[in-house]
Formats: sequence, structure tokens, C-alpha cells
Amino acid sequence: MNFASDNTAPVAPGVMDALVAANSGASTAYGADDESDRARQRLCEIFDADCAVYLLASGTAANSLGLAAATPPHGALLCSDVAHIHLDECGAPEFFTGGAKCQALPALSGKLVPGVLQAHLTERPLLGPHRSPYKVLSLTQGTEAGTVYTVSELQALSAAAREHQLMVHMDGARFANAVVASGASPADLTWRAGVDMLSFGGTKNGCMAAEALIVFNRDLEGDIDYLRKRAGHLWSKGRYLGAQLNGYLRDSYWLTLAAHANAMAKRLSEGLRTIPGVKLIYPTEINEVFVSMPQTLVTELQLAGASFYPWVCPGLPPSAGAYRLITSWNTHEKEVDQFLAIAHSVTE
Amino acid sequence: MNFASDNTAPVAPGVMDALVAANSGASTAYGADDESDRARQRLCEIFDADCAVYLLASGTAANSLGLAAATPPHGALLCSDVAHIHLDECGAPEFFTGGAKCQALPALSGKLVPGVLQAHLTERPLLGPHRSPYKVLSLTQGTEAGTVYTVSELQALSAAAREHQLMVHMDGARFANAVVASGASPADLTWRAGVDMLSFGGTKNGCMAAEALIVFNRDLEGDIDYLRKRAGHLWSKGRYLGAQLNGYLRDSYWLTLAAHANAMAKRLSEGLRTIPGVKLIYPTEINEVFVSMPQTLVTELQLAGASFYPWVCPGLPPSAGAYRLITSWNTHEKEVDQFLAIAHSVTE
Amino acid sequence: MNFASDNTAPVAPGVMDALVAANSGASTAYGADDESDRARQRLCEIFDADCAVYLLASGTAANSLGLAAATPPHGALLCSDVAHIHLDECGAPEFFTGGAKCQALPALSGKLVPGVLQAHLTERPLLGPHRSPYKVLSLTQGTEAGTVYTVSELQALSAAAREHQLMVHMDGARFANAVVASGASPADLTWRAGVDMLSFGGTKNGCMAAEALIVFNRDLEGDIDYLRKRAGHLWSKGRYLGAQLNGYLRDSYWLTLAAHANAMAKRLSEGLRTIPGVKLIYPTEINEVFVSMPQTLVTELQLAGASFYPWVCPGLPPSAGAYRLITSWNTHEKEVDQFLAIAHSVTE
Amino acid sequence: MNFASDNTAPVAPGVMDALVAANSGASTAYGADDESDRARQRLCEIFDADCAVYLLASGTAANSLGLAAATPPHGALLCSDVAHIHLDECGAPEFFTGGAKCQALPALSGKLVPGVLQAHLTERPLLGPHRSPYKVLSLTQGTEAGTVYTVSELQALSAAAREHQLMVHMDGARFANAVVASGASPADLTWRAGVDMLSFGGTKNGCMAAEALIVFNRDLEGDIDYLRKRAGHLWSKGRYLGAQLNGYLRDSYWLTLAAHANAMAKRLSEGLRTIPGVKLIYPTEINEVFVSMPQTLVTELQLAGASFYPWVCPGLPPSAGAYRLITSWNTHEKEVDQFLAIAHSVTE
Repeated sequence: MNFASDNTAPVAPGVMDALVAANSGASTAYGADDESDRARQRLCEIFDADCAVYLLASGTAANSLGLAAATPPHGALLCSDVAHIHLDECGAPEFFTGGAKCQALPALSGKLVPGVLQAHLTERPLLGPHRSPYKVLSLTQGTEAGTVYTVSELQALSAAAREHQLMVHMDGARFANAVVASGASPADLTWRAGVDMLSFGGTKNGCMAAEALIVFNRDLEGDIDYLRKRAGHLWSKGRYLGAQLNGYLRDSYWLTLAAHANAMAKRLSEGLRTIPGVKLIYPTEINEVFVSMPQTLVTELQLAGASFYPWVCPGLPPSAGAYRLITSWNTHEKEVDQFLAIAHSVTE
Repeated sequence: MNFASDNTAPVAPGVMDALVAANSGASTAYGADDESDRARQRLCEIFDADCAVYLLASGTAANSLGLAAATPPHGALLCSDVAHIHLDECGAPEFFTGGAKCQALPALSGKLVPGVLQAHLTERPLLGPHRSPYKVLSLTQGTEAGTVYTVSELQALSAAAREHQLMVHMDGARFANAVVASGASPADLTWRAGVDMLSFGGTKNGCMAAEALIVFNRDLEGDIDYLRKRAGHLWSKGRYLGAQLNGYLRDSYWLTLAAHANAMAKRLSEGLRTIPGVKLIYPTEINEVFVSMPQTLVTELQLAGASFYPWVCPGLPPSAGAYRLITSWNTHEKEVDQFLAIAHSVTE
Repeated sequence: MNFASDNTAPVAPGVMDALVAANSGASTAYGADDESDRARQRLCEIFDADCAVYLLASGTAANSLGLAAATPPHGALLCSDVAHIHLDECGAPEFFTGGAKCQALPALSGKLVPGVLQAHLTERPLLGPHRSPYKVLSLTQGTEAGTVYTVSELQALSAAAREHQLMVHMDGARFANAVVASGASPADLTWRAGVDMLSFGGTKNGCMAAEALIVFNRDLEGDIDYLRKRAGHLWSKGRYLGAQLNGYLRDSYWLTLAAHANAMAKRLSEGLRTIPGVKLIYPTEINEVFVSMPQTLVTELQLAGASFYPWVCPGLPPSAGAYRLITSWNTHEKEVDQFLAIAHSVTE
Repeated sequence: MNFASDNTAPVAPGVMDALVAANSGASTAYGADDESDRARQRLCEIFDADCAVYLLASGTAANSLGLAAATPPHGALLCSDVAHIHLDECGAPEFFTGGAKCQALPALSGKLVPGVLQAHLTERPLLGPHRSPYKVLSLTQGTEAGTVYTVSELQALSAAAREHQLMVHMDGARFANAVVASGASPADLTWRAGVDMLSFGGTKNGCMAAEALIVFNRDLEGDIDYLRKRAGHLWSKGRYLGAQLNGYLRDSYWLTLAAHANAMAKRLSEGLRTIPGVKLIYPTEINEVFVSMPQTLVTELQLAGASFYPWVCPGLPPSAGAYRLITSWNTHEKEVDQFLAIAHSVTE
């Protein structure tokens, strides 16, 4: 009953097989190999775009490289107050950008609200060089609250950003889950909705360590190549990043994996909402479930071997007893059912 | 009727005289001169402390050098949501610290509230290296809203900071005004209340370009000397920073200048509150007056030659018509009275 | 006949097997897993030291994280004029350290000379904060010229460093090759010779992407955990870094792999030196061969499918026709012999 | 007999008078004042160019802001091995640029040699993102060795730079001295010779703290405004920077001051070369004299109250007894003659 993180799951078999298959003979170093080429092309197909693709092993690196390409050091980033880039990357955006300012806006169920963004952007006229000018809006899809932006929400947010000359970055650590949940195409969820760049996640959803920074707005490519090297993120044996993604993206494997994780979360969420004393904090749209639970229940679950984290949800007091439960491609139905059975037995 | 900024005022005569008097003969470069020595000693006397003093020409530099000494690049700074360091220094703290994260808390009349700070600091337990750990609390005294922290407020805030291992920095761009307003001693307003370092302002209150970073907590001195040089803030002809401060601090000149500025603001504030349609937004405790005024009044005042800025006050809608009026050591009573007379005539 | 780089080789079977074996069940994220624990312990055993070990996927990251722990932003690094950190990491040390200055000294066959270092360090007395103080000496073992420092050379260099308060960093991208070549123990080549930290390479010698920053001088650990995260180098599925190293270090697998690579280079080097017109530039002590070859020979070799890079060797004019040939754990004796046979046939 | 530094001299009377004259009434803050406007216009006239001018209080700031505008963080700077930016600014270029790499080439009497530069630039072809690409050439005029580049030397150097897409920065801390020495016009010594930006010095030659970054190549202006603020170098009372420069540049005051300093150095240099045991190290072209002197002479001079620094000159051993003697606008003929008289008496 491991609901601590999708990062605790192993590598999905289709990805591991691809790694093993790629492991013979010499191959050009530093990403100039066939596996990497194929992965980049495959992503262009999936996104129906002639985009620039940078293969990486870490989502933090993908986010930060992208943000650094989108703002000068004196610029400011806007994101939600639960954004991973703001709360959980130890200041990586500040590091990679050379000290850009990260500013968080209040989110509703993890999602930025177009009206709030619009108001914030128009509130303070810039007077000369005193204030850090906003340069990037960063959205997370699926969000850190387990929700998903609709295409029209994305359009409204990116339109507001565009009006004030902000680039739009999307943190897609759980992008696959969002695609499955929304039913929209990768293109509709990104560049067609005004997104300039996407951190396309693979690791949480079945890769070993594979992500891609996908730059739709080719004006922003400039120095990414150099910064990737300079940050130590250019793999010498690049083929093994390419191979992971080729395994991950073959047929619809990535979506199959995400669909399973989403289904497990839905099952968990629907089970939990019927339990007295348990309240769902956000709607469960992807593979994350946020609930408030009584301490007695939590204790029993943990004693039974379930793992999950207490969580801080903006607006809820610490006394609310909020918890985050995450499912993955590898979550078994039985784990979910066992968890629910214990919960039922405790609260009856 | 210039109420735009205390930076529009000229150099006070006692400071300019000191500059002229210092201008003869050779003098050791880079701050190792007699004028600088005397200024540093004088500040130690005024603060009744064996503190380390760094002479600087810019308040932004003083703030940022201090903050850089108090946090590693991966740390986070806490300040109020109207803090100059957060809103008006173009990301200087991020630049000098190597990318520390600046996080703003809601302020009440420009002042951080101990309970809010305490709640914020205890809310999220740090789990490993994912979140930027808080390293510094920065307070502004007198605040950007024209108010003044009492000694007991400072004690409560610094106690909360200390409990969580944060250093306390004070932005004292208008410290002289706060000393006059509070009646408390410089020592009571700083190190005796738990402040580790102070950006002691001179420029706004009558100097040409002279500030001092005063470090009470000598553990924090480490690299300031190097970073000052590295940031281009070590004057080669250092005697002219020392001379300004020696003129400024002689007898109680600095307090006399501030007392005048405060009195002019009080006069303006008290006059304005009697005018129909004008509302005081924050209490006027130093040399800054924040009011909401009807647009017709604003137009008439500007036509008559008055200068002042519209202002964004957190919590007030743009439609509130908020304005900031600043007085200085050089504000003439007649300017204030003329301004009030116009206001009266317009609104009658 | 791929002599372009040891990075073109695949993953050694013992490492890939370990990855596959590690791939089941849930495992704590972010390096707090059993595989990672075992890898860290194994390295402590190998180095006979209670050292701090940070698992990483990139040698550039290992070098830069280590250097950042050893110098403040205003410090300076000393290294050789062929150092990888200086020439081939796109300024990664400058990036991670927050702008420390990288200064190169002339090397002899890739090795810094104690007398040259000593002279440089004593030449310019530091006068206050004007000059970046030297904080770290970085040595590469085996060097970028295919040579190996003896234990006594390391002792002399680190003694000079220590005398001037410099920390000693070792770039061990090819450390395994140096251990094999020197016959000295890992401990004798590092902390017993005064080395404070080592970038222990795995990738070039058979891993997929696995290195370790090993910190012998525990005073230097401070912020590495945070900077690793902040730089995007903390793997969420950390077990796969641990597993690689566990496969690599099991029994003496890592030394067996390196011994083979060294032997292939020796075979190549000894073969080449008998060929008219070919000159060995540096002694071949590890898995790198530097030769000057006539252009006609180069052309023939390339036409036959051999790959290798032209090289710039300090002191040699471009007209010298210098080339670098690299062998790896996966170089086949037949490749070497075929290369030599072509060379013989061309030059006869 | 103060020959320690031109920074030990006081402010020239024409500059101090301008400061006093500017000291009345209100004036717009942050450089949007009349004095600043006039200074910027005056510099455009003097350089016969429609250039962008940024007023600053520090030469280190002028250099570093300019360099930051000319290179991305991953770029490299080329300069001479005695360059002030490399040796004497505590890594300011690295700080302002976000970690660009500073690389020094051997200089001849303080001057870079076109052939050496050309060879260095062509030596290593860039292979992808591994090496920091050269982005700026920085020249000092007059040099740190007291010499002056001729117009044709500047043209040759900037042509080599241009061929490899490098921008050309000039550190003109002693630019006035170089103009006087060369007889060439400010325009001929800068943009007409291919210089993109100049740090125009005022402080050493009679100002209190006033420099200007002059950008001839307007493509490079981009973010300077923001970085100046962010680095704490935008004066709030900007009129006092403008006033200094207006006093300095009025009529040919700046050149008169420099001519005097140069003449005093020439007098000193010519006197010293006739003294047995004293050797001139570099030709004396501006206000700096470099000599090797016997220790007995040095001791006698110091006992008589003369101040000057021992110096490290590349290529000379520490035993050479090298010293730097600097004259200024305020050096008196009598000081020089007294110095020479003592020298004569000691060595006779």
C-alpha cells in the first residue's frame, strides 16, 4: 500500500526492455545518437509540431532549463502557490535563471484563475527598472493538487500572459496523466493553447530517469544547449535517455501507464469519499488524491503498512488533517482495495 | 510642492560642508582612511555596540550585501508584501545572494505580524533538501507604509525568527525617521531587540549617497568585504563616504533632519484628514503619508505643480485612488500649507 | 575501430544486470533506498574511510558540486591548462560556484608541477579584498593527457595547497584507470595524499550514468545536499544510481574493466610508436593515447572506418597533427590490431 | 610623496565646485534629472557619437555591467594577464555576468598582441556546447602597465575579435591619460577603432566617484538599465553623478588634469632612468611608472615618507624588485623632485 509518491515505483517493463535492447555496440556520445534522434522525432509527431526537444534525466532540470530560456536574470516568474517549481525544487529556478524572482499567486484547487492572473498583471504598472518585470507564467498540468486545466482555461491564462509579454511554461511532470484525464490531444493542451514550452515528464510514469524539455516557440531555444551542458545535464551516453523515451512512447504505452494510475486514484478517491470522517479536498482528476482524515484512521492505516504523506493545503489549517495519496502505473487494485477495507473497518 | 520622494531633496548643508572640508591632501584608498574610520567609530557609539560597519553609497547595496551574508544561495528570505527589497530593487537580493528565494508575507499597515510569521514558519516542516530553508527575516524600519515597529513588536518577530534559526535583517532606509518617531534608542530598536544587521540609511535623509551596513552579529561578517568589492561597491576614494556620514552624524544632525521630515508629514497628514473625500490609509508615523483622494482633487493638485505618486496598497482596489506623499528634511512648511490650501479650496 | 571516446561504449553487462535486478517493487525515493545505501557503504569500504558519498549521473555535476562546496563565489580555483573542468564543461564550475574564478597553470604531460604551483601561490600576496583568493586546487587523476600522478606527486601538490589554505579536489572521471595503472590503493591516491574530495567516475568505465562525489573532508559537506537538489541532480528514483554502482563495484569489476581499457591503450600505443612518422606525445599510462600522425595516415584510417579526434596539445602547433585515441572496457583487441595493420600498410 | 595610487588624490576643484553648485532645490530621482542629462549629452559630443551612457560611481561596476551586456553566462571573456578586471576586481566580471569565464592572454608591456590573440582564437575550433564560447575581448586603455594602445593596434585587435564574433570592451579607468598621451580623438580610440563599449573613468583623474559606461554598439544596451538597478548602482540622487561629470568635462578640464598627471610621471620616469641601479620596466606613456629598484634605495625613500607599492610584473622574478609609482592630477612637481633628489643622494 505505497501511496507515498509515484517516484517509488519501478521502471515499467517496456522501458527497461528498451534500455536492454539499446545496449550494444558503439554509439555517438552527447545525444548525437540514433536512439536520441528517434525520441526527438517521436515527440515531434506526438505533439504534431516541429519543436526543439532536449532530453534530460530530471524534471527539475527540465523546468529550470526552460525557465532560464524564457527569462533574463532580472525577470520574474509567476506560478501558483502550490507550484512544484516554487516549493519543492530548492530554488532551482532561481539558480538556473541567475536569480529571477519567483512569485506565487493563490490557486483554486491547484489551478491559477485567469481573472486573478489578469488582475495581478495589470495592478502595478512598471516604472522603470525598479521592479522585476514578469517574463514567464508557469503552469503545472496535471497540477500539484491532482486537477487538470481544461483547454479553455489554458487559453484564457495564456492569453493574459501573452497580453503582458509573458512566455508560458508548462510543468508536465504528470502530463501523461493530464492527457488521459482531459481527453484532449497533446497539441491542444500545449502550443495550440498558447504554451511556449513543456517539461514533458517520463520518470514518474514509468521511466528510470527521462524527461524532455520541448520548446514549441523556437525563439526560445537560444542557449539551452549550452546551459544543459553547463548544468551537468548533457548525458555522455545519451542513447540511454533516448532509449527510455522510445520505450515509453512506443504505441501508446505512456498513455496506458497513465490511464492505469488515474484509474487507481479514481478508485481510491471514490472509495474514500464514502467513508465517514474522510473528506476529499480537491477533485481527483489524475493520480493524486487529497483527503482530510481523522488521526485515528491515519494511525491504523500506517500500522497496517500503508505509506502516504501529510500535506499542507493552502487555506486549510494544520488541524484539518490533510493527506496526499499517490498512485502510479504500478499500483495494484488490491492495494487500493486493501486500503479502503481497512478504512472502512476502522470507521465503522 | 514636491512630495514625490525623499530622494528628490538635495544634500543637507551639514553633509555638503563635511565633503568640502574633507577635500584636501592625499588619503589612503579603499576605505582605509581617517574619515571612514571615524564614521565607523561614530556608528559604534550611536548603537552602543562593537559592530562591524561597511560604508556604502546605495541602500540597495546595503540591503543585498547584508542578505547575502545571512543566507546561502539555496536559502529563502521572508519579508512583508510591501518590502522594498521584494518589490523595488529589481531582484537585487536574488542577485547578491546567488539566487535565494524571496517570499513575502501579508503585512498590516506595512508591518509583519508576529502571529502570521509564527504560523508560516511552523506550517511546513522541512523534508530534506526539497524546499529552500528560511534563513533570514527582513524587516523595514520605518516601514514602506510610513509606520514604525515598536520595540516589543520587533522583539516578538525576532523571537519567532530565532526560534526557527533565521537571522534578522533590518532595512533602515528611513531608520532615522523611525528613531525620532519611536523615541527608542538605536540599540533598543536593533540588536537589543534581536536584529542581527541593519542597513542604516543616510541618502534619503540628507546625504548625497551614503549608507552603512551595520553588522551586530559578528558571525555574519565573513565574506562581506569580498562581496562589496566584487559588486563594485568599494569606493576607491572612500573618504567621501566617511565624510558624508561624519557630517550627517555630528551632534544629532541626522535626528534633527528626520524630525523635520516627520513633522512635515504629520502636518500634511493632519491637514488632509480634515478634507472631505480624503482618507488616510495608514497611520502617519514617519515621513510618508498614504491617502486615498478623489481624482478631481488629484488633478487640481497636479495642475498647481504638486508632485506625488499613485500607489498600490495591498487589499485596496485600484479604484481606491491611493497616493503616496513623502516629505524630507528639505520640505518647507509653506509647501505643505499650500498643498492643503489647494485641497481645501477644491473640495469646498 | 571506435577510438573517439570512452563515452561511446555501451553499459558493461555487470552493470546492466544490476539495473535489471533492482527493478521490482516500491523503493523510497530521492536516494533513501537500500541500493543507494549499499553503494555508499561500498565506496566507504573501497576508500577505507568514513566519507560522505553523493550519487550522481554526471561527472560535470560531481566536479561542480564538489568545487561549489570548496569555494565561496568570490574564490578562485587552480587547475591545469588542459583540465576538463576548465576547457570542456562550458563553465560549469563558474555556474555551480556562483562565479568563482577558474585559473589554469601550465601542465607537463597533463600534470601540474609542484614547483610551478608553489611559485604561483607565493608570487602575489593578497592585499585585501581586491583579488579572488585561491580556495581550491583541482587535479585530474588519470589526467586529460593520459598520464597518472604518483602518490608522491599528489602529496607534494596537496602540501603546497594546504600551506596556502586551499582545498584539494580530484576529478576522477578515469579514476579506475589510474588505480590500475598506479597500483596504489584508492585511499593512497586520495585522502591519504591530502585529497579532500573526489569525483569518482563510473560512466566512462562501464556505467550508464553513474558517478559519485566522495567527500573525505567532512567539513565540506555543508550544503551539497541542497545544491544537488537545486541543480536538478537528485534522482527521484535513486535506486537506479545505486544499482549501477553496486554492479560496477561488485568484486573488482570496476578495476577489471579499467585494466582492459588500459591494456588496449598500451597495445595501441606500443604498436603506433613503431610506425614511421608517428610520434607519441605523452606517455600512455591509462586508456588515452596521444600521437602526432601524418595527414595521409589519418585519411586512410578514417576511410577505413576508424574514428578519433584531432586534439590541441599546449605547446604543439596546429601543424603538429595531434590526435587523441581512446580505448574503453569494450574495445576489442581486433579493433586495435586492425588499426595498427592499416597504419603499417599505409606507411610502408 | 604619495605615489601609491591616483585614488589617494582628492577631488579636483572644478568637480567639487560643480557638486556644490548642483546642491539646491528638488531634482528628479534615479538619473532622470537635468545634470545627468547634460552629462550624457556632453559625452555624446566628446565621442562624436549617438551613444548610450550610464552614469556610475565605480569603475568595477562600469566594467562589469558592460561585460554582462556583452556575454551570456556561458560565454568567455578574453583579456590580458595584467588586466584589472581579471586580477583586481575580486571576480566582479564573473559575478555580474552570472559566471562567464575570464581567460587571460600574455601581454607585452601590458598590451595584448594581435597575433597572439588571432592565434588563440583560431586554435581551438568549438565542438558543440562543451567549451565556453568567446564573446568579449576586453582591452585596457591606458593599460595597467602604463602604456597606450595606438589606433592601429586597436584596429588590429578589434578586427581579430570581430572575425570571431567577439564584442570589444574597453576599460578606460585611465582613458583621459591615454587620450592625452596618444593625441588621438576619443572617437578614434574607441568606436572608430571597433570598440563596442567603454568604461570611461573619472574617479582616478579628479572626480569623487564618477564613471560612465558608454555603449557605442546600441545592440548591447538591452538589460543594462535593469542590471544597474539590480546591482545597487542606480543612484537615487542621480544629479550628483551628473554634476561631477559636468564639472569634469567642462571645457577640457578632464584632459588638463590628465596632462598634468602624465607630465609628472614622465618627469619621474626620466629622472629615475638616470639613477644607477634603477631600471624602467615598461615605457612611461601615461601616469604610471614601473621600475626595478635596489632594496636599499626603496628603504631610504620609504623612510623619507614616500609611498608606493611593490609590483608583480609577469616574466620578472620576485627578486627583480619591481615597483609601481603613480602620479595624479594633484601630484606636485616638488614631490617628484624631492623623490628624485633622495634617490640621487642614496645611490651616489
